[in-house]
Amino acid sequence: MITVRVPATSANLGPGFDTLGLALDLFLTVEAVSAPTTSCQFYGEGKHQLDSADNTNLILSGLNQVFQEAGETVPTLKLTVNNQIPIGKGLGSSAAAIIAGLFLGNHLLNQHFEPERMIKMAADQEGHADNAVPAIVGGLTTVMKYEEKIYYQQIKMPENITIIVAVPDFELPTYKSRQVLPETLTLAQSVANVQKACMLLAGIFNRDFRYMNKAMDDQIYQPYRKQFIPGFDEVLNSAGKAGALGVALSGAGPSIIAFAEEHPEMIGRSMAETLAEHNVSSQILYLKTNHTGVQID
Amino acid sequence: MITVRVPATSANLGPGFDTLGLALDLFLTVEAVSAPTTSCQFYGEGKHQLDSADNTNLILSGLNQVFQEAGETVPTLKLTVNNQIPIGKGLGSSAAAIIAGLFLGNHLLNQHFEPERMIKMAADQEGHADNAVPAIVGGLTTVMKYEEKIYYQQIKMPENITIIVAVPDFELPTYKSRQVLPETLTLAQSVANVQKACMLLAGIFNRDFRYMNKAMDDQIYQPYRKQFIPGFDEVLNSAGKAGALGVALSGAGPSIIAFAEEHPEMIGRSMAETLAEHNVSSQILYLKTNHTGVQID
Repeated sequence: MITVRVPATSANLGPGFDTLGLALDLFLTVEAVSAPTTSCQFYGEGKHQLDSADNTNLILSGLNQVFQEAGETVPTLKLTVNNQIPIGKGLGSSAAAIIAGLFLGNHLLNQHFEPERMIKMAADQEGHADNAVPAIVGGLTTVMKYEEKIYYQQIKMPENITIIVAVPDFELPTYKSRQVLPETLTLAQSVANVQKACMLLAGIFNRDFRYMNKAMDDQIYQPYRKQFIPGFDEVLNSAGKAGALGVALSGAGPSIIAFAEEHPEMIGRSMAETLAEHNVSSQILYLKTNHTGVQID
Repeated sequence: MITVRVPATSANLGPGFDTLGLALDLFLTVEAVSAPTTSCQFYGEGKHQLDSADNTNLILSGLNQVFQEAGETVPTLKLTVNNQIPIGKGLGSSAAAIIAGLFLGNHLLNQHFEPERMIKMAADQEGHADNAVPAIVGGLTTVMKYEEKIYYQQIKMPENITIIVAVPDFELPTYKSRQVLPETLTLAQSVANVQKACMLLAGIFNRDFRYMNKAMDDQIYQPYRKQFIPGFDEVLNSAGKAGALGVALSGAGPSIIAFAEEHPEMIGRSMAETLAEHNVSSQILYLKTNHTGVQID
């Protein structure tokens, strides 16, 4: 039996749109054994959405993709999926599923493809390198696409940081969240964004979180996307007042991610209560950074 | 006698437009003694441009500014200025002059103003916090303007990095270099810029310079500003071929800055030769990071 485990990821972190991503200790786990026909049994988050073995299953698409690129035939497998990652909430569930399939396939192909090629395949298929890269390598990552190639650096996330995620009980498809993005920015907006992204990264390097809330206050896409999340500004405010170091939309949303050194439960409770005041029920997750990325046993 | 010493600075470093700045071990030094009338004697770089004691002298403007804000009368002083920083070349000579005046004034006022207020005054008067902040605090800095306040973080520049600066023998006034900037960017351009700035910072932080040349390849303002520097693209290419880790326009130009771990002389020579092929004579400086910022004795 082969087991593949892929972490959830939170992309953007405010100013790092399509750039920064963080791997979280919340996992999609796939167990695979040889079988006469292919089947896929789901447990956990999104069981109802995922309970099918056709091409909409992203794990099987990843698996097919890697075999196709290698020019080999996909073997028939019995897959058992345990998923902790909420689906359609901005926590990288699609990236995790594609990566599980790709890496399971590459393992069955005796590591036919180099890690660099696997990252490119995952980012191309998923469309978001800022989710794919941290899900593969773990930790906090910054990605750069340059002449169609993907480059990244890992930055060590301080161990004492707890990541609080408020997961509203509704889905927000990424395409809908992308549709509202502005096509152009003023130079001043773009500069403000670079200043915030650099301040966020440098503050994390320096373990100096004094300006993290200001650095994470994105004004490029959050003002457009927040229309989909009732009470978004109020949740950010209440988390800040409860002691969050910084708060932002997680990926395309609707989840909201907050960083804290202390009192994570107070912050989580204030986020849930504020969402509830806007008639949104939610689940609060208390997570740590995942440092391993995808793992295969 | 009071002596104030302020380092040269290189702003932007490619993708960090109005954000990143680096202090260099090249100085403007001002010696001040009490005298019956104010006078200012210049030695070194820009002697001819600076040899006047009227209001166009930025050192005196800085001095006047700080006394005015304190509601005090400026004393009469004999100033002797030794300047190593080329004027109008994108190396922070204006910032250094203003900061020398401001900090000399604040010293005479017994540190009337807090460091934070001094940084704000310098950035406001100079117009570029990305030069003013590293000149004051030293090192590599990233600045963020947020609701009219200026925040910064310092990042340690690796000691083994040599900074090679090609200083063409012509001036490029900053206002001229600013006039050609685009007013708007596409979201994709802005994202590429954030990706590059974060990659540059994270690479410096991780001492991993493999992608520095790509990360420093700004496509926001360099394509507009390079019209003022004959052979700009060729200089970047030749520096890269000679082993430079990364190359970019220094501030508003016309100086070009390159980073190297090895063979700085080869890189400097190739930059000078390429400029010469485009009929531009130049001076090559081999510098290290300044870590002290402004110093007063």
